[in-house]
Amino acid sequence: MKTLNDLHIVSKSHLTHESIAALDRQMLEILLYSDSFDSPAPCLAVTAAKYHLSTGGQRIRAVLALHAGKCLGLPPKDTHTLAAACELLHNASLIHDDLHDRDTHRRGQPSIWYKFGDEVAICAGDLLLSASYLALSQLADVASMPKLFALMHTRIASAIRGQCADINRSKHGPITIDDFKNIALTKSGALLSLPTELALVAAKQYPSLVRAREAAAAFAIAYQIHDDLVDVEADASRNPIKSLATHQTANHTVCNIVLILQADPHCVDARVEAKKIGLQHLSLAASACTDLPLHSGDALHAMCLQLHDELECFE
Amino acid sequence: MKTLNDLHIVSKSHLTHESIAALDRQMLEILLYSDSFDSPAPCLAVTAAKYHLSTGGQRIRAVLALHAGKCLGLPPKDTHTLAAACELLHNASLIHDDLHDRDTHRRGQPSIWYKFGDEVAICAGDLLLSASYLALSQLADVASMPKLFALMHTRIASAIRGQCADINRSKHGPITIDDFKNIALTKSGALLSLPTELALVAAKQYPSLVRAREAAAAFAIAYQIHDDLVDVEADASRNPIKSLATHQTANHTVCNIVLILQADPHCVDARVEAKKIGLQHLSLAASACTDLPLHSGDALHAMCLQLHDELECFE
Repeated sequence: MKTLNDLHIVSKSHLTHESIAALDRQMLEILLYSDSFDSPAPCLAVTAAKYHLSTGGQRIRAVLALHAGKCLGLPPKDTHTLAAACELLHNASLIHDDLHDRDTHRRGQPSIWYKFGDEVAICAGDLLLSASYLALSQLADVASMPKLFALMHTRIASAIRGQCADINRSKHGPITIDDFKNIALTKSGALLSLPTELALVAAKQYPSLVRAREAAAAFAIAYQIHDDLVDVEADASRNPIKSLATHQTANHTVCNIVLILQADPHCVDARVEAKKIGLQHLSLAASACTDLPLHSGDALHAMCLQLHDELECFE
Repeated sequence: MKTLNDLHIVSKSHLTHESIAALDRQMLEILLYSDSFDSPAPCLAVTAAKYHLSTGGQRIRAVLALHAGKCLGLPPKDTHTLAAACELLHNASLIHDDLHDRDTHRRGQPSIWYKFGDEVAICAGDLLLSASYLALSQLADVASMPKLFALMHTRIASAIRGQCADINRSKHGPITIDDFKNIALTKSGALLSLPTELALVAAKQYPSLVRAREAAAAFAIAYQIHDDLVDVEADASRNPIKSLATHQTANHTVCNIVLILQADPHCVDARVEAKKIGLQHLSLAASACTDLPLHSGDALHAMCLQLHDELECFE
């Protein structure tokens, strides 16, 4: 299953070129913090991590953190630090995900394992994961740190749980719609939820955490459905799921909701049904976003509206 | 190059069965902290990490943290938390190291990648790395956290630098004694230095950090030499380094100091020379240990004496 990495729906109004450049500088500073020690020789993992960050991406998690932090009245420096922590972590997960999935390219460029080898990819992911915690420790509000760290670890553990469910799933079958949703919401939803949740914790808005998480989980499922509708032809050619009606053992390596629905004899039109489930989850996500305090969910809400329009385009 | 993982020289007087059991319980609690969320289905990475911790090990980093914390007057709860953080991190590094080196066994049991597969090994290492930061965030003294986190990240980055130098080294040649020392002190010394350093930072004994690091670095080099003397026959059969005197390109995949010295035409007896360098570094390490405040370096000093006796046994 793909991760939420190439979402083309981020509202540009939330992140200017200047703020992206500032975020990238901050991430590099954190990354290179450790590189001033020890030997002056360049470290391959640092080189690989820098290369990975330079390939860009849309910084969706940064948008979510910057928007929520601003709405919730956090100090700008802390808001930027939260954004950097979330992006460093997300990029760590992408490097290890590409290795898991043997994806040779990311953002149109060779992926880390493909360019630098498996060992450097493991090291570069570890380095970015560690750097994301270093970033979080640079917040001015030290009293909040235990709660922030506990939240970050919990979401990392959730993403790992999703990754493991995906690994396990690809070795066993058949997969149900519930399995699909569970993988999407743990694997992608966890790290998508984190930026808003961290901002809420830093602002001591604890009662809103549940809704923030529900919003991100529902959005992650809807996004995955959108992605599966785009990729269904390609996935079908790699992934001939045998019909459940034939009572044959399913043998699939790709998790695509349209293919799962097609294998269900009660489903008349898998694409229509997938689109319907996607729109239902977008509606849940948008509703949860509007419940968040001080408009802190508006950036994710804008993404819901854009994804809604994109989903509506599918026949 | 092997890591400092099977050191048989830990002074048993520093760690009772009860304290090992308490440490293991604490590590499991931290690890399972995140597992009470999300789906009730078991997560393969959690299963693998629990299995890895259950295989034991000598908890050398825990001994160092517990001893230093006690001498420096830290609250017992914080001292145990530091020990748990160091052991979780060390075990994370072992899981990823075994994958790097394709070592099929660890502590007499199948290694994680060998038993659960590469993907689960990456996830389990990531989970333990994240859990080590969670552990550190549970210290009572929140004001010290930024310094403690910065130190932990710096040592992780150093260990990664050593790992990358080792990867790079195995693709290029010839290797020098300086390369060997640099790999040993970054790859193994960094995480061995961390327990004492964290205790010193928590006790605000900042001026002693440099000596703590020098002690661990010198000890790590001496230990690696001891390990290489034990393994030289096995390594030589895998690793025929051509003599530099023949001006042929070296082609080695194993980094063993005896083999490096054998390739030097000026070296009369490589084993004797390796032993001499090892004893020199042990002397440096022991001296640095005695400079640490309030006997906080005594546990490492005891390990130096034991390793000295073991090195002296080599002809």
